[in-house]
Amino acid sequence: MTIADRWLLPDGMDEVLPPQASRMEELRRALLDLYYCWGYDQVMPPPVEFLDSLLTGTGTDLELQTFKLTDQLTGRLMGVSADVTPQVARMDAHSMRHQGPARLCYCTNVLRAKADPHQGGRSPVQVGVELFGHAGLEADLEILQLALMSLKVAGADEVHLALGHIGIYRSLVQAAELDPDQERALFEALELKSPGALAAQVEASVADPALAEMFMALGRLHGDADVLETARRAFDGAPPAVEEALVQLRALHRGVQREHPEVDLYFDLAELRGYQYHTGMMFAAFVPGYGQALAKGGRYDDTGHAFGRARPATGFSMDLKQLATLVQSEPACDGIWAPAEGEGVAEAIAALRAGGHRVVRALPGQSTPPEAHRCSRRLVHDDGRWQTVAL
Amino acid sequence: MTIADRWLLPDGMDEVLPPQASRMEELRRALLDLYYCWGYDQVMPPPVEFLDSLLTGTGTDLELQTFKLTDQLTGRLMGVSADVTPQVARMDAHSMRHQGPARLCYCTNVLRAKADPHQGGRSPVQVGVELFGHAGLEADLEILQLALMSLKVAGADEVHLALGHIGIYRSLVQAAELDPDQERALFEALELKSPGALAAQVEASVADPALAEMFMALGRLHGDADVLETARRAFDGAPPAVEEALVQLRALHRGVQREHPEVDLYFDLAELRGYQYHTGMMFAAFVPGYGQALAKGGRYDDTGHAFGRARPATGFSMDLKQLATLVQSEPACDGIWAPAEGEGVAEAIAALRAGGHRVVRALPGQSTPPEAHRCSRRLVHDDGRWQTVAL
Repeated sequence: MTIADRWLLPDGMDEVLPPQASRMEELRRALLDLYYCWGYDQVMPPPVEFLDSLLTGTGTDLELQTFKLTDQLTGRLMGVSADVTPQVARMDAHSMRHQGPARLCYCTNVLRAKADPHQGGRSPVQVGVELFGHAGLEADLEILQLALMSLKVAGADEVHLALGHIGIYRSLVQAAELDPDQERALFEALELKSPGALAAQVEASVADPALAEMFMALGRLHGDADVLETARRAFDGAPPAVEEALVQLRALHRGVQREHPEVDLYFDLAELRGYQYHTGMMFAAFVPGYGQALAKGGRYDDTGHAFGRARPATGFSMDLKQLATLVQSEPACDGIWAPAEGEGVAEAIAALRAGGHRVVRALPGQSTPPEAHRCSRRLVHDDGRWQTVAL
Repeated sequence: MTIADRWLLPDGMDEVLPPQASRMEELRRALLDLYYCWGYDQVMPPPVEFLDSLLTGTGTDLELQTFKLTDQLTGRLMGVSADVTPQVARMDAHSMRHQGPARLCYCTNVLRAKADPHQGGRSPVQVGVELFGHAGLEADLEILQLALMSLKVAGADEVHLALGHIGIYRSLVQAAELDPDQERALFEALELKSPGALAAQVEASVADPALAEMFMALGRLHGDADVLETARRAFDGAPPAVEEALVQLRALHRGVQREHPEVDLYFDLAELRGYQYHTGMMFAAFVPGYGQALAKGGRYDDTGHAFGRARPATGFSMDLKQLATLVQSEPACDGIWAPAEGEGVAEAIAALRAGGHRVVRALPGQSTPPEAHRCSRRLVHDDGRWQTVAL
């Protein structure tokens, strides 16, 4: 193979060079510190688990995204984590078993078998928080606030927040008593956001005229807060869970307006992302210039059930790699360039470093300019002592 | 499958819970900050590469340790990184192409197919530094110093440093003109550290009596600094590269004694770890109570050759997971427990958090004790304002 072939990286498996790697590290710290201040404790899920544990209750999307490995020790199939959230739910359900609410956060590499245009590369650094053990809206609002603050920390000025609630579609499907094939066809029509396809599917599978009307309304219910008012009328007579979902969305709307009045809110009641495991409100936060959502989350109660402990759960996650592209700051250029040799220079360097300074010591014969090593000063021997002077 | 089966994690694929995860995070920051102060810039290598790139010039040990994946996009075989060092060498050789010396550091997850008793689990967090572009001992000494300082940062009081030099064995093998089978047999006898096996192999393959004597001496040359003096006599008349290796070891000995007089130095001239890619001095740092080395490194010039740029290179790495078990500190218990509700409480909480305080807000109905959430104070409304009081 040629040298040029060896340089090639698999699509979506990126390396991060300086100074972007430092920006990512700084953002990682700022986010974990933010979550710490809100009472979230860090966990590190295993990068690999047995496939049965990893994919329990998570749905086929994640299964297709998961790289499989054979465990040479047991011969069993393992999967590389493609999404940390179900792992953290297992840790909450089994490893920690806290009484009462538990707040957890993480920042870790995951791998995805396929490049998903909505999720960036195949090697994201997933960072996020999960709040277990509280079914109330206070938990959802806290999660929404943390997602918005995270984007602010990363440097986003303008944020568009899309809110939905999987309970509306789910309740309508239940009431319509669709068989799995009908449900799948309807789901796909809604996902396509095509009124024609939706009308055809509704006509074919929903017998009750009132319910048929509601499904058709669902396809139109996206836009600003007026959507909630329109929905109230459109879903008059719907199952109580639909009304409950609307009540929740109105409360979240008020909460976000109160805490983050600068955020542009958008509702999409036909949003079905993560249908297989979401159980309540869902959101996605967008920043102009980025086609895909930078933060995504929502409620996913009872994922821990497969691990022996069903718990309310809500949370969100982001890709640190993607998020760090928001960071505009130039890396600090405040290093001190020190000579390779000189009486007492080692001690002078050690003292500066102990004081938190970056000191780059020249290696004998090195002739690269100090600026290339982010230095703005130079250590020189003058007046009988070592001191720093501007370059 | 039963719930208990779902709990099982593959051997050596660990999860890290609070408070250990926080200790790891703190240590990660302290180490990366240390490397920054010494002029090292952070990089993040890709977690997966095409197998041909990943294993170029690294030897069969690493190949056996590397999990293989099929790239669904190209059908080509990829490998999950099991050792970051060759990846960073590729990044230096190809992606960065700095003129003159380059100092790089990293902290990232790797995966290993087999549990190696000398390397801890199968999912280490590899942290380390690499210095490219300088062939002199100043670079090796800087790397040794950083390894020793890293252990100190982690909390090690007593460190034993084992120093070796692959150039001695390599030069003797060249001079003896061994064929590959003879070389492999001799290598294994030395690795076994069995004088009987060594004598048998030397007798069978080394014709020159002086060289045979030197190979036998090699098996005995381990211990304190006197070993270097004994070696000078034992290798009298050896190829010049052997004498050069001894000169280097003596200089490193002086350097470590000068900078880290507290460290216990040990020499092992028959240490052959990483024979396939090491090219000069090699070291391993031990801490009492840990059977395996906590930091390992050495010189590995010209790894970048396969990527079009042969460069001098020296560095070391550690497993952050293992290293963090040295950290004794109890996590801070300085949080403030805040009530779920109350006029103006949200503003009071926001102000405290903005000041860097950890504020854990109770969720409605929550009855867990604040201590369980690392809180030592409570936010109460008293005298007409919100203030914190000891629990």
